[in-house]
Amino acid sequence: MTSATPPDRSDLDALPLETKAALLSGQDFWSTPAVEAAGLPSVVLTDGPHGVRRQEGDFDRIGLLRSVPATCFPPAVGVGSSWDPDVAERVGAAVGREARALGVPVVLGPGVNVKRSPLGGRNFEYYSEDPLLTGVLGAAHVRGQQAAGAGASVKHFAANNQETQRMQVSADVDERTLREIYLPAFERIVTEARPATVMCAYNKVNGVYASQNHWLLTEVLREQWGFEGVVVSDWGAVDDRVAALRAGLDLQMPGDAGAGNRLVVEAVRSGELDEEFVDRSARRVAALADLVAEPAGAFDVDAHHALARELAAQCAVLLKNDGAVLPLAPGTRVAVVGEFARTPRYQGGGSSHVNATRVDDALTALREALPAVSFAPGFSLDGPGDSLREEAVALARDADVTVVFAGLAEDDESEGFDRATIDLPAVQVELIRAVAAASARTVVVLSSGGIVSLEGWHDDVDAVLAGFLLGQAGGSALADLLTGAVSPSGRLAESIPLRLEDNPSFLDFPGEQGHVRYGEGVMVGYRHYTTVGRPVRYPFGHGLGYTTVDTSGLRVTATGDDTALVSVTVTNTGERAGRHVVQVYVATTAGPVRRPARELRAFTKVALEPGESRTVELELDRRAFAYWDVREGGWVVAPGEYTVQVGASAAEVLAEETVTLAGDTVVPELTLGSSVAEWFEHPVVGPQLLEGFLASMPDGAAEMHAGMLQMIGSMPMRRFAADFGSAIPPAELDRLVAVARDARAT
Amino acid sequence: MTSATPPDRSDLDALPLETKAALLSGQDFWSTPAVEAAGLPSVVLTDGPHGVRRQEGDFDRIGLLRSVPATCFPPAVGVGSSWDPDVAERVGAAVGREARALGVPVVLGPGVNVKRSPLGGRNFEYYSEDPLLTGVLGAAHVRGQQAAGAGASVKHFAANNQETQRMQVSADVDERTLREIYLPAFERIVTEARPATVMCAYNKVNGVYASQNHWLLTEVLREQWGFEGVVVSDWGAVDDRVAALRAGLDLQMPGDAGAGNRLVVEAVRSGELDEEFVDRSARRVAALADLVAEPAGAFDVDAHHALARELAAQCAVLLKNDGAVLPLAPGTRVAVVGEFARTPRYQGGGSSHVNATRVDDALTALREALPAVSFAPGFSLDGPGDSLREEAVALARDADVTVVFAGLAEDDESEGFDRATIDLPAVQVELIRAVAAASARTVVVLSSGGIVSLEGWHDDVDAVLAGFLLGQAGGSALADLLTGAVSPSGRLAESIPLRLEDNPSFLDFPGEQGHVRYGEGVMVGYRHYTTVGRPVRYPFGHGLGYTTVDTSGLRVTATGDDTALVSVTVTNTGERAGRHVVQVYVATTAGPVRRPARELRAFTKVALEPGESRTVELELDRRAFAYWDVREGGWVVAPGEYTVQVGASAAEVLAEETVTLAGDTVVPELTLGSSVAEWFEHPVVGPQLLEGFLASMPDGAAEMHAGMLQMIGSMPMRRFAADFGSAIPPAELDRLVAVARDARAT
Repeated sequence: MTSATPPDRSDLDALPLETKAALLSGQDFWSTPAVEAAGLPSVVLTDGPHGVRRQEGDFDRIGLLRSVPATCFPPAVGVGSSWDPDVAERVGAAVGREARALGVPVVLGPGVNVKRSPLGGRNFEYYSEDPLLTGVLGAAHVRGQQAAGAGASVKHFAANNQETQRMQVSADVDERTLREIYLPAFERIVTEARPATVMCAYNKVNGVYASQNHWLLTEVLREQWGFEGVVVSDWGAVDDRVAALRAGLDLQMPGDAGAGNRLVVEAVRSGELDEEFVDRSARRVAALADLVAEPAGAFDVDAHHALARELAAQCAVLLKNDGAVLPLAPGTRVAVVGEFARTPRYQGGGSSHVNATRVDDALTALREALPAVSFAPGFSLDGPGDSLREEAVALARDADVTVVFAGLAEDDESEGFDRATIDLPAVQVELIRAVAAASARTVVVLSSGGIVSLEGWHDDVDAVLAGFLLGQAGGSALADLLTGAVSPSGRLAESIPLRLEDNPSFLDFPGEQGHVRYGEGVMVGYRHYTTVGRPVRYPFGHGLGYTTVDTSGLRVTATGDDTALVSVTVTNTGERAGRHVVQVYVATTAGPVRRPARELRAFTKVALEPGESRTVELELDRRAFAYWDVREGGWVVAPGEYTVQVGASAAEVLAEETVTLAGDTVVPELTLGSSVAEWFEHPVVGPQLLEGFLASMPDGAAEMHAGMLQMIGSMPMRRFAADFGSAIPPAELDRLVAVARDARAT
Repeated sequence: MTSATPPDRSDLDALPLETKAALLSGQDFWSTPAVEAAGLPSVVLTDGPHGVRRQEGDFDRIGLLRSVPATCFPPAVGVGSSWDPDVAERVGAAVGREARALGVPVVLGPGVNVKRSPLGGRNFEYYSEDPLLTGVLGAAHVRGQQAAGAGASVKHFAANNQETQRMQVSADVDERTLREIYLPAFERIVTEARPATVMCAYNKVNGVYASQNHWLLTEVLREQWGFEGVVVSDWGAVDDRVAALRAGLDLQMPGDAGAGNRLVVEAVRSGELDEEFVDRSARRVAALADLVAEPAGAFDVDAHHALARELAAQCAVLLKNDGAVLPLAPGTRVAVVGEFARTPRYQGGGSSHVNATRVDDALTALREALPAVSFAPGFSLDGPGDSLREEAVALARDADVTVVFAGLAEDDESEGFDRATIDLPAVQVELIRAVAAASARTVVVLSSGGIVSLEGWHDDVDAVLAGFLLGQAGGSALADLLTGAVSPSGRLAESIPLRLEDNPSFLDFPGEQGHVRYGEGVMVGYRHYTTVGRPVRYPFGHGLGYTTVDTSGLRVTATGDDTALVSVTVTNTGERAGRHVVQVYVATTAGPVRRPARELRAFTKVALEPGESRTVELELDRRAFAYWDVREGGWVVAPGEYTVQVGASAAEVLAEETVTLAGDTVVPELTLGSSVAEWFEHPVVGPQLLEGFLASMPDGAAEMHAGMLQMIGSMPMRRFAADFGSAIPPAELDRLVAVARDARAT
């Protein structure tokens, strides 16, 4: 990624142990140490992901104070709602360019944890409740950023789904759930986009700190996924330095004045740790030097701001638009209400907080676009608002349309704590209801990092535009959408439930006494709502535009035992250009595990001019049909029927076709501990067993067979053979175990 | 329990190893071997619990064929709905008397597993979804049975909540959930009623077979609860005989022709197993001989049938009674519809199936009580029923009241398999709807072992009487209730949800690939519905009578740091005598764990004549307020407020009072791995730490304190001290760890 030829590092292993160990932790809060003897420069790693947070000079010890200005692009919650890898890639590329301009070789991001609970304090830094959407967007971001010359750090690996007790809590998650929900985004990004680094999470996974979890950092990440880059700790995530190194954590951040490195050296000297662990991690960290380059020239602040505006407009989600109140017609008398119209909420708090180069507000942008715009703040972010509300209601009474800018204040959500509620502040709910009662028509624009409830006012208003967080040009982008300069094309990347209590993690979030049980398993977000038939306010995937799109001609063709090709035609039947998201879900009951009602398995966003028709083809690979089989320890495609559904959302199927897949032939292992049913149903052994068994039984016993299997089908064969008859001699059982083993091997 | 002086067994240890080992498994399907050298008779153990299932002569190998006649009392699902320990105790006593008459020293029961899912195939053998109700009733049954001279076998220990894969599946349950939900009934019965035996379950608990689970069978059962009796395996539950013996399983059933005993002998001879394990279990099994006595004279078949009728009438639950359609007025023209009116459904299938001495049907009993009763079967248990339905509708058209006897056929539910649905058969739903449309008034009587859904017809009918299963006199008992000879007094022991999908175990039942995740934790049944605010058709605790009862004068008084006394007055304000259940729930948010919205903590059933008023006092002991603290490894009463609620059901609070309890003083352990927040919030160490810390910080740092704690409160102190400043010297940390340790010790 840099034009210089990488220096030869073959002699790195020969450096003194202390020098190598020194490479394994920061020299300060933000950089690795230079090693002159090896020609290695210091490498700066800086927060991201939706903008560069470069601290210069005497930065504070916890790294949270002011940084140099950079463009604040839409945070991941916005990019997630775009459903557009192109948006994610362009954000990544722009961040990469700014990083190069600011002399930053590694920008820490993207964050690709799956949103388990709407209360998650860092949800605004994550894309979605769906692992496929998350993985596709995250991979695109990494591609863009690294192509522009800045290494990425995919985070937080793994199961880092809450802020409460984040440095202590054990995420207790079964393996199928990890493999199907919480790991796939990381897997896709690592295998497809090859990020320079992966950042391990603070929390424990099944009782073991992520920073010293060998299964996670070595078996899964390196051995199974082939990751060759650096595993860096989240800042302060290393607990036992030697255990972490052995587990596969290369770089400890921030620096701890050499304390950890001294422990590493001592462990090698005492024979507790093989020096090869040090050499291996030192080589990996040294390779980061390839990313170091002379700072590029200053980035184009205006162009990046314009880009931020263009991209932000792809991210907002039009949830409701009764009577086509939006876009605002040119002559409309518009009352703008809500403090957020002039004091925009556009990013979250904590390590991702960017010092924006400038900030657009929607009020100014609307006034530039429309002739008659009045304004009242409606509420204050600090206190009660009775008089402010009355003023706003008076304004609304005279308007054709009132646009209320509501949402959450920056203090309401940040890294470091989880939310306690999804409610809008009561003062805003009262304002919306009062305005809606007074105004001819009412539009609500929402700005928040996490989802907020629409209950108590949803039915009173004509339109709802969910902006989430859109970065520094969010205000102008919202104006573009409200006026129709751009047609909304975002889709919900997270379900909006009717009640927080409906969320499947509700009773198990954020856990207790050091543990959080992922009791809902794979049934996260829409997977839960659709499977139990629970209504939501707006489902995952929902989003309107200013035009209408027709879906037709769905064809699904199996292209192998475990793959298929989907072809579908979408036609813009309205009068405006717009982008449309084709969402492909797969539904099945095949196999031995409980599957969600449907799962997103492919998607694409297409631009359509009025009247334009496009046929899109989407490949469904093996993973689109597979489940994680804990017995086989791998992905299995069960033979059977799979219904491929094109959805307007996770809750609305527009068209579906069923394909039958041959799937995988799994020949189960048989032992004396396997159940009688497993023995009799075994594809190879079963027929042989039944024949011999029935032959050995007295007359009439065969009729008992079915009823007996029901009562004792789950009995281990060892007990069945011992307790309930000697129809099957031990030698025969041994022979059949061997038969099963041989069948499995072939 | 037998009048003979127990023989001296001090010389048992000196018997040959083979002889002692032989005591540790059955000599056949139903009995232990006699040991003449030690004067030990064979001990027969026979299925229960709601009647004696004694097989004589050449019983079949799987023990499911015909048994000698005995009274079939109401199964546990009925007794559970009585909410009356007197009913349970009288069932137990009668079963004990019949056992003595039939020469059976041990009757296997009661079953006290908590009903986790409405689909559980043996739910009819269990009392309730609530552990307190289950435990109180189970203890009463054991008291009654053992006082009558037959040892009990409390089963199935533990977490045996499904039939699917029952001999293989691992119930994966966290310890708090085990301690608060699945173990308390066993604990209460063991500690209060001292059952002769406890039967271990087939399934695994957290990966280890219950039959060889040392934690369960020895640490919890014997060491913590003081159990001194015999642990017997469920029939065929022993997998590894030596491991089971070492874990605390004494008696393997049924016999396996000595195979298991030979393994035990070999293990002792090889030094793998200490002979003391054999001696200890042999002494316990030998003690069962104390229960052996000469068979008493024949039991009084007529008296026991009358008792079965009396008790059954206490068990049915009147769910709905619009316009007081029940009881049926003397002159009413009644159409009886439904095959179950003449072919009663009164018990479940499997090991508890009793060969009843006689069986009452409701139709005959109603015809004895009422002058004008017509009948049409309405549906057949075998096939389609269009013409039967038409006949029934014609009958209903001419009746004042039509009583439909609906429910599940015996084949629909049994030991050995779980149900797949809670729906009534469609033919019955159609019948009810058609009859309700034709009849002036409609009453539905339900007979089923598990709950059935009332959706699709509930609002069409005037009354619903849920009989569940009521034993051999259930038919006449239902007639007693319908005619008003007895006033209904049952209460639901299990919630009836609107949809199966609403049940908290829905997505995790019956598990997959050898594991069932108890993902809902302690939020079982009404604990879930009330906590997430999910409406149900009828809540736990619901039940109507033929009179009205007023609740008044609730007083709650703390009687110590962790106990309280509840006093409440109930008054029969109607015109009929009736029994009323006082239900006391406790609600709290005190402590570090998520508590259910409310939990049943005390109850009593009182008989009230018209106009009668009674003040009842109920003690709330320490456990009524405690939660299981996994960090402390014990029960903790958190200091704080507890709201004591008297409920008409789990969903309807009639009166409440709040008490403040001092609770327990828990001084947490502190280590360098404890979080910064835990250090600063520690009751003893916190103040000392804060003082020193603030003194060491530069000006202005104090203001950062709160915000910093939010960001890094969960950071382990080790990392905080190392990474983020050296304000707290290592020696000081060591000193404070010792301070915490000392404070904890005192």
